[in-house]
Amino acid sequence: MSIYNKQDLNDTICALATANGVGAIGVIRVSGNKALEIVDSIFPDKSLIKQPSHTIHFGKIISDSKILDEVLVSLFINPKSYTGEDTIEISCHGSPFIQQQILQLLVSKGCRLAKPGEFTLRAFLNKKLDLSQAEAVADVIASNSEESHRTAMMQMRGGISNQIAEMRERLINFASLIELELDFAEEDVEFAKREDLIRLVIQIKSIIEELLASFKYGNAIKNGIPTVIAGKPNAGKSTLLNALINEERAIVSEIAGTTRDTIEEAFVIDGIVFRLIDTAGIRDNTADSIENIGIERTFDKLQKASIIIYLYDASKTNTSELIDELSRFTNTNAVVIPVANKIDLLTKPNTIDNNTISLSAKDKTGIDLLKERLLEIVRKDKVKNDVVLTNLRHYEALQHANDALQIILNGIDTQITGELLAFDIRKALFHLGEITGSTITSDDLLANIFSKFCIGK
Amino acid sequence: MSIYNKQDLNDTICALATANGVGAIGVIRVSGNKALEIVDSIFPDKSLIKQPSHTIHFGKIISDSKILDEVLVSLFINPKSYTGEDTIEISCHGSPFIQQQILQLLVSKGCRLAKPGEFTLRAFLNKKLDLSQAEAVADVIASNSEESHRTAMMQMRGGISNQIAEMRERLINFASLIELELDFAEEDVEFAKREDLIRLVIQIKSIIEELLASFKYGNAIKNGIPTVIAGKPNAGKSTLLNALINEERAIVSEIAGTTRDTIEEAFVIDGIVFRLIDTAGIRDNTADSIENIGIERTFDKLQKASIIIYLYDASKTNTSELIDELSRFTNTNAVVIPVANKIDLLTKPNTIDNNTISLSAKDKTGIDLLKERLLEIVRKDKVKNDVVLTNLRHYEALQHANDALQIILNGIDTQITGELLAFDIRKALFHLGEITGSTITSDDLLANIFSKFCIGK
Repeated sequence: MSIYNKQDLNDTICALATANGVGAIGVIRVSGNKALEIVDSIFPDKSLIKQPSHTIHFGKIISDSKILDEVLVSLFINPKSYTGEDTIEISCHGSPFIQQQILQLLVSKGCRLAKPGEFTLRAFLNKKLDLSQAEAVADVIASNSEESHRTAMMQMRGGISNQIAEMRERLINFASLIELELDFAEEDVEFAKREDLIRLVIQIKSIIEELLASFKYGNAIKNGIPTVIAGKPNAGKSTLLNALINEERAIVSEIAGTTRDTIEEAFVIDGIVFRLIDTAGIRDNTADSIENIGIERTFDKLQKASIIIYLYDASKTNTSELIDELSRFTNTNAVVIPVANKIDLLTKPNTIDNNTISLSAKDKTGIDLLKERLLEIVRKDKVKNDVVLTNLRHYEALQHANDALQIILNGIDTQITGELLAFDIRKALFHLGEITGSTITSDDLLANIFSKFCIGK
Repeated sequence: MSIYNKQDLNDTICALATANGVGAIGVIRVSGNKALEIVDSIFPDKSLIKQPSHTIHFGKIISDSKILDEVLVSLFINPKSYTGEDTIEISCHGSPFIQQQILQLLVSKGCRLAKPGEFTLRAFLNKKLDLSQAEAVADVIASNSEESHRTAMMQMRGGISNQIAEMRERLINFASLIELELDFAEEDVEFAKREDLIRLVIQIKSIIEELLASFKYGNAIKNGIPTVIAGKPNAGKSTLLNALINEERAIVSEIAGTTRDTIEEAFVIDGIVFRLIDTAGIRDNTADSIENIGIERTFDKLQKASIIIYLYDASKTNTSELIDELSRFTNTNAVVIPVANKIDLLTKPNTIDNNTISLSAKDKTGIDLLKERLLEIVRKDKVKNDVVLTNLRHYEALQHANDALQIILNGIDTQITGELLAFDIRKALFHLGEITGSTITSDDLLANIFSKFCIGK
């Protein structure tokens, strides 16, 4: 069942727009060309059709001449609404029972319950947002740290769209010139200078490559950096964790409660989320085969880590032992940070190399050094461009666009015809347009994008 | 720490008004005499102070020249607001992170986080609601069935308040006349005819007694009727439960998820909630002492039940066995309904008396008979008066008022002086006024009432 069915778009839809559960108030959103008429029929205190946009009206919701609730009704008249259609928000008491009753009443009056993301889908189809902005709406809602929020906001406000639009415009100009040449094919004119095209394509490629490079960072800040605190029992892992999450505990618990992943614990440094991967199991070696399976699983998890903090008791571990321990991680792709703990017990801690950070988790000395190192590792992927790519779909479209641009360069090099060149440029334009949805977008793609939204958005 | 501190009431307060968690939108409420000024300072797109009440404005929330979110701001200018103060509702993206950030920003600009119920407390103190209406707001939000919702709505809309106000007014008139007599004490006039007073007091007492009688029903529909389905293993308890909740499963799961009690399961018949008390443990007798403790606990729970549905396998149970089984419940206060199950296996089911309901949970035959019996038991407590008492505090105040009225009657009977009579009438008036808060209300009482609210209301 596709979300995107042209007939469905004539329906007037409704959904609870606020989070589920008990609150002081809940907001029910109604959108479509019958929104005013339908809500009018259950809100006898005032004729909403006669009221101006962006006004609020107090009154009763009536069902079968019984009062269902006293509500505030907010009007957003087409096109001055989120969806671009007539939209009404009913602010009712925050009881799930009442919300359910009002939704049922709306449905009985001709509304349909909205599918996930359907309000935003309509906003896109009515050109209130382009596709990348629409996708960013979901990211803004899901954002759980300063950096992920900042990049999502930038995208929602058109950060990527503007860059893409500029590149497309310049390429379209060139494509038009080349297509003009085709009309004058017999006259052998060259409206579009090939050296100008090469310069433009190289310029656009460099912007695209910068955006592609930002994806690693963008993805990390969107999803959090998978991090392992490994080490033998009693190395001080829990104490270190507590020291790391110390100041940010409130925000951390917020994240743990709201994220869609199975994050068990996380900490935030300077607005960047580090997600802890649980590795209960890296213990001493054992002959027991069941425990060995456990260890194997742990190493599977280590493969998913970007950063491994290897903590050891500096008062007890000698260098050869340490080298042996660290060798376990050579097969992972993660950056390993050796961390010598319990330096409060020593005069000179054992360190394997200059890379090692020495700290006392108990006394909270040296924690800042570790935090700086963690940020350093993440930020080495940060790019100068303020616009950061966070969306895999955009990443893939840009890769395809980049490939198409390379083919253009190769084509110019081998002096292909203007006709073929125009075709290659159109291909690059197509892939750039995929990001913002300015290229014709398939229903399946829209269904795929918007089905990930929450209902009510 | 009391919620009600006169100095605090000058603060401008803020809180998330919608349920916690991720949603399409979240609403933050700001109320107080600096609400406009504070929100203006973080919302640069428009000067809110210049805008009329009940209008909505789109714009950005700015923190340290960074865009925190794009929001809709709704204005409610004093006194046309819920609290009676200037109130602003900020409708932001439904991300807990953003909501947290906006609340922090508001606090940094001079708001204070609201205490539970503080918006409604202010509404009461600013005479937007009386006390019983304010209390009903919490009941409306917590209501989870048609009946509990209906009674809470009626109370919020002044159902009880109106009845109380009418009774008080008539008593006050009498009190005034009697007090007038005292001014003319030497002249021995009687402005307030004693027989009229007797008639009035008897009339008011009968209204109060009707209200008091409605409390049993009101409390049952507000909190659900504690119900046990008891019976031996394989009597068909789960099948019966499934048959009972059949049509209402959606609403039931809603209730289970949102109620504040530890309801494990519930079913709704005709808008009335029957809360199931878990009695895993009513099994066959056993010599094992640990299991006996379990059985004791079960019987503790049975004490809390209003209704016990005793289910037995009619194809296997003989009458003497059944009488023995039912005798277990003689110590409870509950109404016991014997239910013969599995009548599909029999031609003529074993029943203990005419009271027994015969059904087949599997075939869903006879379920309606059981439902009718359950409703019958609840509704025998229903009263004619449409206003139903659901609040223990009101119940106690009415009891005190009723006692005071009885003292008046006794006083007239023993021909006490007008002075003493006036004093007794004032006492009755005081207790009636406690319900609506028109009598001077203690800070502790307010603290107690509003601390039970959710934050943001």
